[in-house]
Amino acid sequence: MEEKFLLNNDDRERESATFLESSRRSQAIWADLPKNPQKYRVLTGERPTGPLHIGHLFGTLSNRVKIQELGATTFIVIADYQVLTDRDSADAVGTNVHEVILDYLAAGLDPENGRTFFFSHSHVPELNQLLLPFMNLVTTAELDRNPTVKEEIRAAGLKQVNALMYTYPIHQAADILFCKGNVVPVGRDQLPHLELTRKIARRFNDRFSPENPVFPVPDALLSDIPLVLGTDGQKMSKSRGNTIMIRMTPEETAKVLKGAKTDADRNITYDPVNRPEVANLLRLISICTGEAPEAVAAAIGDGGGGRLKAALTEALNAYLAPMRERRARHAKDPGYVKDVLRRGVARAREEAVATLEQVRKAMNMDHGLH
Amino acid sequence: MEEKFLLNNDDRERESATFLESSRRSQAIWADLPKNPQKYRVLTGERPTGPLHIGHLFGTLSNRVKIQELGATTFIVIADYQVLTDRDSADAVGTNVHEVILDYLAAGLDPENGRTFFFSHSHVPELNQLLLPFMNLVTTAELDRNPTVKEEIRAAGLKQVNALMYTYPIHQAADILFCKGNVVPVGRDQLPHLELTRKIARRFNDRFSPENPVFPVPDALLSDIPLVLGTDGQKMSKSRGNTIMIRMTPEETAKVLKGAKTDADRNITYDPVNRPEVANLLRLISICTGEAPEAVAAAIGDGGGGRLKAALTEALNAYLAPMRERRARHAKDPGYVKDVLRRGVARAREEAVATLEQVRKAMNMDHGLH
Repeated sequence: MEEKFLLNNDDRERESATFLESSRRSQAIWADLPKNPQKYRVLTGERPTGPLHIGHLFGTLSNRVKIQELGATTFIVIADYQVLTDRDSADAVGTNVHEVILDYLAAGLDPENGRTFFFSHSHVPELNQLLLPFMNLVTTAELDRNPTVKEEIRAAGLKQVNALMYTYPIHQAADILFCKGNVVPVGRDQLPHLELTRKIARRFNDRFSPENPVFPVPDALLSDIPLVLGTDGQKMSKSRGNTIMIRMTPEETAKVLKGAKTDADRNITYDPVNRPEVANLLRLISICTGEAPEAVAAAIGDGGGGRLKAALTEALNAYLAPMRERRARHAKDPGYVKDVLRRGVARAREEAVATLEQVRKAMNMDHGLH
Repeated sequence: MEEKFLLNNDDRERESATFLESSRRSQAIWADLPKNPQKYRVLTGERPTGPLHIGHLFGTLSNRVKIQELGATTFIVIADYQVLTDRDSADAVGTNVHEVILDYLAAGLDPENGRTFFFSHSHVPELNQLLLPFMNLVTTAELDRNPTVKEEIRAAGLKQVNALMYTYPIHQAADILFCKGNVVPVGRDQLPHLELTRKIARRFNDRFSPENPVFPVPDALLSDIPLVLGTDGQKMSKSRGNTIMIRMTPEETAKVLKGAKTDADRNITYDPVNRPEVANLLRLISICTGEAPEAVAAAIGDGGGGRLKAALTEALNAYLAPMRERRARHAKDPGYVKDVLRRGVARAREEAVATLEQVRKAMNMDHGLH
């Protein structure tokens, strides 16, 4: 790994200041969103690297459904090209896009409501073209010090960084700004990317269109995301086999939970510091049932790990049942899934074509063709 | 300027080996081109940074007309985004695109022949999207050591390098490969870019479509370009005021040439080593009339710099007259110029859409939408 991609203290200080400022704005938006949902256009999404699990569900999907229900317009980008930032093969991308759409539908994202759209960015050329004017606005020095890129390069153990990985915060800006998204639900670790998107929006407006800004400067929407770990108390990840997928059957769920890690103390208590694995399972039950984890623990008492796992299996399968029912129904109709994507892509393209025309005009590149 | 952008000896050795190999292939193509013009699809073009001068005309435009007349299909990219690699303002881009098309028409490039197309790359989103899969195939280490980028960063005196400049050899690959260009007329200094395009074509085919290659591996077409300097014996450049523009009037041409630098010796001889400024003016007459520069010098004899300049003025104005006549005619009809561009863009887009669909299929990103 190259020296320049290592985190340093300056990065950390910058990150902390950004976080405080972003939190303040985020709170104001959460307060206004129920009152003025029509003011907000939300951009969110993920890389289609595999089917989604309960970490995604409790972390981001539930949050998206909540924002959708408040009445905002939501564009959800399936970032297929970005799958290649840290791996060479695109073999599974096609399948994964299909799976992730089924997971969206399962979670309750509703493309029939007229304001929720799913699209793959590889199908919106006018969005991708924004990368060019945006790259003009960012220096290599800024890309070199982006802490999230550094962290992802480290996490993926990359020896060489490809240019797609190196520039991906700029591509992310295109994913957000093509539809003039003004709100982006992100975790704290994604704030540096969003800061760059904000800079790009400001710089474009200042340089090319000071009288009549083309882009909004989007805000982060931060949420209290419950801490959800894998069944072994580690970070949830498909490769560790410690996850529950939305698409699993109740039996598969029971089997994975049977192998969950607990501890030797049969008396179940909620003690996140000293009993992290048990606490994690209790929190999962709490998310599903709405009961406090302490109350869940008290009800199990000295039933031990067996009782705890049985309770979680029951709670989780009950919670997931309506989602899985929806998922199974849509999985039987691949034509519908394609149609949802096709409509989302068409709508995204409408937005992107209109934005790109404005961008060309602002840059004196219309050439009288429009 | 950052250390990593300085040229070193390794770069020079690599460059030399590439040049020899490229020359060999180029000669074979020049021999085959008149026999099999339909085999060749040529991609060429420039950044619209201002009207073209006789350096462009004798250097590249004449060469393009020659290739056109041999019967090959030629796509000429007006690389408008790339104007921003080394400057901040896009104010003049619109005007310059119009001017450069008039210069093309003046030089004899003929969009009415059904095989010569002018297009601005900002209007072909599917071409620009190719940047994304291509960036996946190139490492930052490779971009860091591209000698032409280093040289351009040095020449432009850039303190900071923007991401558009940094990645522009990859964008150039998209400009070439979107239409499956297999021949690129370039100067020796552009060979490293073309080498990267060749690598990208090979890597894409190997990684995503080994059975059925999507891209040709394009070859350089090197030419003996006559050495043309400015009227002061220095590199021709608009900012030095030492150029003759194609669009100038005969009177403007006479005025610029009157100020040309010669020397104190009234007896005109062709001596490139000791009398570089005089030799340059003689070579220009030679290009226009077809006479050898030595013969031109002998005819002027001891007429001195005045006679030399008068002879050049006459020869150059006579040579440029039919071009200027064509230019003036088209300049009166901006609708035609726009129409030429519109048709070129439409044809380029047809190519780009078809290529991008193949690329998506090869990468498992079709998602059943086509």
